[in-house]
Amino acid sequence: MEAAKSLKANGQRIVVAVDESEESMFALQWCLSNLTSPDTKNTLILLYVKPSPAISISSFDAPGYVFSSDVISAMEKQGKDLVSAVMKRAEAVYAKFNTNVDLERVVGRGDAKNVICRTVEKLGADTLVMGCHGYGFFQRALLGSVSDYCAKYAKCPVVIVK
Amino acid sequence: MEAAKSLKANGQRIVVAVDESEESMFALQWCLSNLTSPDTKNTLILLYVKPSPAISISSFDAPGYVFSSDVISAMEKQGKDLVSAVMKRAEAVYAKFNTNVDLERVVGRGDAKNVICRTVEKLGADTLVMGCHGYGFFQRALLGSVSDYCAKYAKCPVVIVK
Repeated sequence: MEAAKSLKANGQRIVVAVDESEESMFALQWCLSNLTSPDTKNTLILLYVKPSPAISISSFDAPGYVFSSDVISAMEKQGKDLVSAVMKRAEAVYAKFNTNVDLERVVGRGDAKNVICRTVEKLGADTLVMGCHGYGFFQRALLGSVSDYCAKYAKCPVVIVK
Repeated sequence: MEAAKSLKANGQRIVVAVDESEESMFALQWCLSNLTSPDTKNTLILLYVKPSPAISISSFDAPGYVFSSDVISAMEKQGKDLVSAVMKRAEAVYAKFNTNVDLERVVGRGDAKNVICRTVEKLGADTLVMGCHGYGFFQRALLGSVSDYCAKYAKCPVVIVK
């Protein structure tokens, strides 16, 4: 039996999937409380996934209705503001913990469940931590529970925080 | 936002669902490596769920085929041996870690996914840790992935270890 890696050892990478939900901030808190400690040199990676324009537009799609480029660029801007707001909120949660864990930010784009699983693999993450419900406003409406999918398919231990 | 509980605080209860699979022993290792430390007074609860006789028999059910009471009592005995073997194996994993975490053993009976979720709730567990694949020989054949269900419905943070 291969030995389970200890995240208390140095140099472990923990990905926390964050979005605008209360659940994802709670997941981040859980992670900071339980998977890191002041004497470790782990890296905490905040991962936010923006929906691709095609996905966000199609959720409003209706016969005979076409989005003007103004509407699309307004949605793009709103998307950027959202990333910034979510990251700032996550950093505020992080700042409350007395930890010397390094913080990195990664923003992905596309189908949240696939982007999260691919990113975790690409980064060689040791653990993925995420909230239980939905992932982002648009995706929530479209895709059902992203955490279900990631718990099953991500290639590392996954923590689902309720 | 309610604060996330730290398992590093004293008196937390962590349930690890164990079965005869390699994955569940790996999950136990992960738990001992990452959620407990020598200076905590947490309780680690090993939970094994035996299939109910009805379930294990129906998996072999075929028209015109009836189990004799001998076969049933042989299966009962095999079930007891299995519990004992799994618990011994789990204790051997636990013994390798230098931890003063208390160890408890709970054996349930019935449909693994429901028994696990109910037990976690009844024990007021702070975290559930489990492997990714199946749960027990009989249940694996019948029920598909128990971890999928628990990740969704258990009333505490769930760690799925791959």
